[in-house]
Amino acid sequence: MYHLNYYLEQVAQLFADEQFVAEPVELYEPIDYTLRLGGKRIRPTLLMAANAMFGGSDDTVRGAALGIETFHNFTLLHDDLMDRSPLRRGQPTVYRKWDENTAILSGDTMYALAWRYFLRQPSPRLQEILNCFNETAIEVCEGQQYDMNFERRSDVGIDDYMMMIRKKTAVLLAGALKIGALYAGAPDSEVQKIYDFGIHMGLAFQLQDDLLDGYGDVAVFGKQTGQDIRDNKKTYLPLRAMEMANKDQQKLLAALFSSKEADDEEKKVKQVMALYDEIGLRDEVKRAIDDEFKKSIWTLDSIQVDEERKTALREMLSTLDGRKK
Amino acid sequence: MYHLNYYLEQVAQLFADEQFVAEPVELYEPIDYTLRLGGKRIRPTLLMAANAMFGGSDDTVRGAALGIETFHNFTLLHDDLMDRSPLRRGQPTVYRKWDENTAILSGDTMYALAWRYFLRQPSPRLQEILNCFNETAIEVCEGQQYDMNFERRSDVGIDDYMMMIRKKTAVLLAGALKIGALYAGAPDSEVQKIYDFGIHMGLAFQLQDDLLDGYGDVAVFGKQTGQDIRDNKKTYLPLRAMEMANKDQQKLLAALFSSKEADDEEKKVKQVMALYDEIGLRDEVKRAIDDEFKKSIWTLDSIQVDEERKTALREMLSTLDGRKK
Repeated sequence: MYHLNYYLEQVAQLFADEQFVAEPVELYEPIDYTLRLGGKRIRPTLLMAANAMFGGSDDTVRGAALGIETFHNFTLLHDDLMDRSPLRRGQPTVYRKWDENTAILSGDTMYALAWRYFLRQPSPRLQEILNCFNETAIEVCEGQQYDMNFERRSDVGIDDYMMMIRKKTAVLLAGALKIGALYAGAPDSEVQKIYDFGIHMGLAFQLQDDLLDGYGDVAVFGKQTGQDIRDNKKTYLPLRAMEMANKDQQKLLAALFSSKEADDEEKKVKQVMALYDEIGLRDEVKRAIDDEFKKSIWTLDSIQVDEERKTALREMLSTLDGRKK
Repeated sequence: MYHLNYYLEQVAQLFADEQFVAEPVELYEPIDYTLRLGGKRIRPTLLMAANAMFGGSDDTVRGAALGIETFHNFTLLHDDLMDRSPLRRGQPTVYRKWDENTAILSGDTMYALAWRYFLRQPSPRLQEILNCFNETAIEVCEGQQYDMNFERRSDVGIDDYMMMIRKKTAVLLAGALKIGALYAGAPDSEVQKIYDFGIHMGLAFQLQDDLLDGYGDVAVFGKQTGQDIRDNKKTYLPLRAMEMANKDQQKLLAALFSSKEADDEEKKVKQVMALYDEIGLRDEVKRAIDDEFKKSIWTLDSIQVDEERKTALREMLSTLDGRKK
């Protein structure tokens, strides 16, 4: 135990053993479909690893592990509808495979099922745990709203962007870790540290995703590069580039990012990437990612448990960090 | 105290005092709009009345009262989007006033806010209370799915219909009452009775709504009669009529209820109503409603508290019962 693979396997088994289909099947089949699409299941894995790190038994957190992943998949289901995304993990999204109403109602039900999983797992700190889950859920909703707002705004700065990805991505990773620690009965100071660790890891993870869109290896990254550029998506890359650019470069970048359905999309991607290179953006973004990774490592270092118990979380960090190589 | 008006005023004040707008305003303004549209706020009123009936203090259930109404309004918000309803309480629905994505995400956030209200109110029986709230929420989702399924099915019977309205309408009224009783620390036997009381009241209430569509006084009912007939909606009326009709009447009714956008909608309404009269449907439905009302009264009678304390719930029953006169 204490290795990442152990928890990944525990979580995979947890979902394999669970029955999601019930009556009426029109409501539950899309839920089963969504929860069986797989994915890395990082959040329940973090939850179980944090619980074990602080001495908790795996049995005490299976409900919460199922709950946090069910909640995460509910947000993906509704986000895919709102963003009109046709595919998720290479398969048709629920609103495409069924219809919009199915996506709305099956999503709502998944949210309620997430609560059912949480409520089936008693704990002396249950109210704290449920508060953490719920406040995290509210922040995730706010993050999604900011993300949609930013698409319509032209004055988004790096600080706004960091606040948005904190809410949309980082708090759920941090919340999963905190919930694991609470189930284990960790002291408040250490609960706060594991939460902060998750925030930094989440920010690093999202910035890396932004970087990989520009500089990823298609074979490793698994998707085409430059998609954010084609979509005029204001990720960390163009926002930071704007700050670093001189007046002429700013003008060019703004023009490129306001063109709608450019005649030659590939030319646009090349122009943007050339500008990024001119500015020296890649190294700058790598520095920002490394900063967050370092902060997460320092926070993990400071947690008062045997080093051996930190193995899984250190392995998780290496795995995430390794993506950019 | 113990009078219905007292609790209606308490609940009105609760919502008047509450602040719903926060950042980002794009997310919270539709929530504020929805929660300020008013309505009768029956569910939180029932919750507070049941709590007081069993000797609980009003202060212990304000969170739950806000929570149950916020949840109810969340379901209306998403239902209006799924049903494409343009108006709610005479005002534009959220997806019309804003857009579909706003309705989805603000709705999701309202669901999370409902939980926040519940979690801010401690109780020795909190886990039971939260379980009741959550299992009720799941049943409401299932009820909405059955309702949508039934629109596409031609073999829906009275039993299916009763099961559907139980989940879609009755369980939330029953759940509100049960939660109030749990906060008051009522014994399990009485908690079960108040829940059953709510189920019968909820069924009576919904059947009455069905009856009023056909036989309501427009001035009292507040909406045009015959709308369910125009929409070919399989409510208790046509389903019961089918059971009571002879072969020829069944044929005619089936034909009328399968016509899409009839040339002369008013003629269709008149034909259906004439058929209902021929069958003697009105008295039959009144009998079914009275049955449920009687069962709810008997259940209330059997609850072991001073008669005086039952005043508000008896007044609620009379108010509901009075609608059909």
